[in-house]
Amino acid sequence: MARTLALCFALMLSACSVAAPAQAESLLTTKQRFSMPSYKTVGGRTIKQLQVGWESYGKLNAAKDNAILITHYFSATSHAAGKYHPDDAAPGYWDAIIGPGKAIDTNRYFVISVDSLANLNVYDDNVITTGPATINPDTGKPYGLSFPVVTIKDFVNVQKAVLESLGVKKLHAVIGPSMGSMQAIEWAASYPEWVPRMISVIGAGDSDAWTTAALEQWAIPIRLDKNWANGDYYQGDAPVDGLAASLMLITQQALTPAFFNQQGEQLDYHPLETGPLNSITQQHSIVKWLDSRARSRAAKMDANHLLYLVRACQLFMAGYGDNLKQSLAAVEAKSLFLPASTDLLLMPYMAEKAHKQLLENGKDSRYSELSGQLGHLEGVLRIAEQADTIQAFLQY
Amino acid sequence: MARTLALCFALMLSACSVAAPAQAESLLTTKQRFSMPSYKTVGGRTIKQLQVGWESYGKLNAAKDNAILITHYFSATSHAAGKYHPDDAAPGYWDAIIGPGKAIDTNRYFVISVDSLANLNVYDDNVITTGPATINPDTGKPYGLSFPVVTIKDFVNVQKAVLESLGVKKLHAVIGPSMGSMQAIEWAASYPEWVPRMISVIGAGDSDAWTTAALEQWAIPIRLDKNWANGDYYQGDAPVDGLAASLMLITQQALTPAFFNQQGEQLDYHPLETGPLNSITQQHSIVKWLDSRARSRAAKMDANHLLYLVRACQLFMAGYGDNLKQSLAAVEAKSLFLPASTDLLLMPYMAEKAHKQLLENGKDSRYSELSGQLGHLEGVLRIAEQADTIQAFLQY
Repeated sequence: MARTLALCFALMLSACSVAAPAQAESLLTTKQRFSMPSYKTVGGRTIKQLQVGWESYGKLNAAKDNAILITHYFSATSHAAGKYHPDDAAPGYWDAIIGPGKAIDTNRYFVISVDSLANLNVYDDNVITTGPATINPDTGKPYGLSFPVVTIKDFVNVQKAVLESLGVKKLHAVIGPSMGSMQAIEWAASYPEWVPRMISVIGAGDSDAWTTAALEQWAIPIRLDKNWANGDYYQGDAPVDGLAASLMLITQQALTPAFFNQQGEQLDYHPLETGPLNSITQQHSIVKWLDSRARSRAAKMDANHLLYLVRACQLFMAGYGDNLKQSLAAVEAKSLFLPASTDLLLMPYMAEKAHKQLLENGKDSRYSELSGQLGHLEGVLRIAEQADTIQAFLQY
Repeated sequence: MARTLALCFALMLSACSVAAPAQAESLLTTKQRFSMPSYKTVGGRTIKQLQVGWESYGKLNAAKDNAILITHYFSATSHAAGKYHPDDAAPGYWDAIIGPGKAIDTNRYFVISVDSLANLNVYDDNVITTGPATINPDTGKPYGLSFPVVTIKDFVNVQKAVLESLGVKKLHAVIGPSMGSMQAIEWAASYPEWVPRMISVIGAGDSDAWTTAALEQWAIPIRLDKNWANGDYYQGDAPVDGLAASLMLITQQALTPAFFNQQGEQLDYHPLETGPLNSITQQHSIVKWLDSRARSRAAKMDANHLLYLVRACQLFMAGYGDNLKQSLAAVEAKSLFLPASTDLLLMPYMAEKAHKQLLENGKDSRYSELSGQLGHLEGVLRIAEQADTIQAFLQY
């Protein structure tokens, strides 16, 4: 079990899961491109020639009423399931629950996911996004910090435009983990007539003071990097050190002592390692592991995009009202919250707050915790534990 | 209660405590200087002309057997109790339990504390320390990164030299919070004949892989600051931004969502504040609060000293053996562990591990948790909750 979890993690958050049954061959999928000539943000700014990528699994039926939207997490893309090529190293992150005969059954549902604006993995060949690294059509240069602040509701609005372009007028359900949970509940609050069912995994209904401050800690290392240059680094060296530092922090906060100490055992970690004892510039084995993992992931990411995603999450209250009670008043969806008991990043109290507010508002809401020792990443790597709950909820 | 806790915190970790009874007038104390012509570190390097500050409360008796050593936490100094002048804004951090008639009764005990090597508050007039900001007598310039790596055991060895200079040959007890808890248990493991009683508050017996990685996150922002210049910044601008970033992270990890959200209420925090919605360079109220607090504290601190303290904590296993069982084998002390239930920085499992290992080794060890919502800082700001337990243990 311990080794399996480490292996799962080594595969870069791919969809292996210790609780998943033996899987049939993976789905194949292809990245699609969606364009809008102009989009107006929640903050009132205009983005010209907006483009995002999307992908889907299963078929949209004739009535176009079998769509399930998957909203992705902070460091993810729309690659929620399947493979682009049969020989891909790993399928999308929730492949354990999306596919033929799985909890989110692609024989039954048209499952679709959309790359976020300012997607972190902008240099991944399979990602299409618009953000600060995009060329501003008015200047012919990357936007940098002149890109407008975008919000979770902007992500939702763009997803809605993608769905409308396919003729969809109502979802069967919207489901997402972490930052994806913010989009899911935003859908339910802002477009209630679209959303009969909403599942929030390792989620939140708003960003409280604690979360907004914690998110800021992810942004700070990037702004400290001398190469960041107020976001105007596209002609020179990118702020890779700052970006890697941010990813190190995110990775640790998304996991747990139990995971790190198990990883430490595999590295023969000891507090008295000779290198760091002899030199202030040497690092412990566990730090080297965390650092090298972060640098490897950073290769496909853009530092400014991370800043914009941080801001989108900070600026979040589902429904964008004065308070959560008012914000969630319009929700018509049946809701299901699946936080992780050991989550240190979005602790269960966050999901519980939204769940309780929905109940107080007289809505239909359910709550169940993912168990296990992976913290926040329970909602990505071990989602199959709740496969039956999700499957039943989709038919409820 | 809520407002009282915020006020306590605003007073910069001074010794106000919601559970403390009305206090008599504060003790007065004076910083003393201790010098060693030469000290050899655990890592085998030599520090010439080592100096540290110390202070005491109460009187050493004729038999010199009534000394209680207080070992301080990461961002603290030897100012554990009392005031330097009657008009000081606040007394030392544990004044709630140290003084005449208090849990650590200065009518009965000679209570002493010593500034750590590489003390963080090197520019505080009441701190005397030797670290990377100190002038190297061989070169006439600040050591910077040429200062040897120092360990928790080095702190202990210097404290032992201070005590020996006063004629003390055995302690009545050693007590410390957080990094101070590491020194306390180190004393018990390395110099068992000196330590009949040890109290570990919000503590640990070793730095596990999780803690070593978490500590590294505190160091990273400093190394990213362009002014850091590999630690050789004493002729130019100090890396204040990096140091402040580190303090922001430490402050958040030492507290809790409950505290931050209460602070947020006082700031009228809302996720949709206009500034951050309109501009990526603007910050939320809670971030500004955290930032300004960190910058204010940074004024008396040195960034390299923070790096050296991080390393000292990373390189920690009480007794410096191959494993904790062996490391703690020599302990003779009766031990008391007081972790905080809501601690997110050194979670209770850390203290529990050391406590259980002592029990397995056949030692006398007790364990009780501080309650309350201040997380790690319960052990500093609300220690009075355990005053009776501490008082009784000192007479056991």
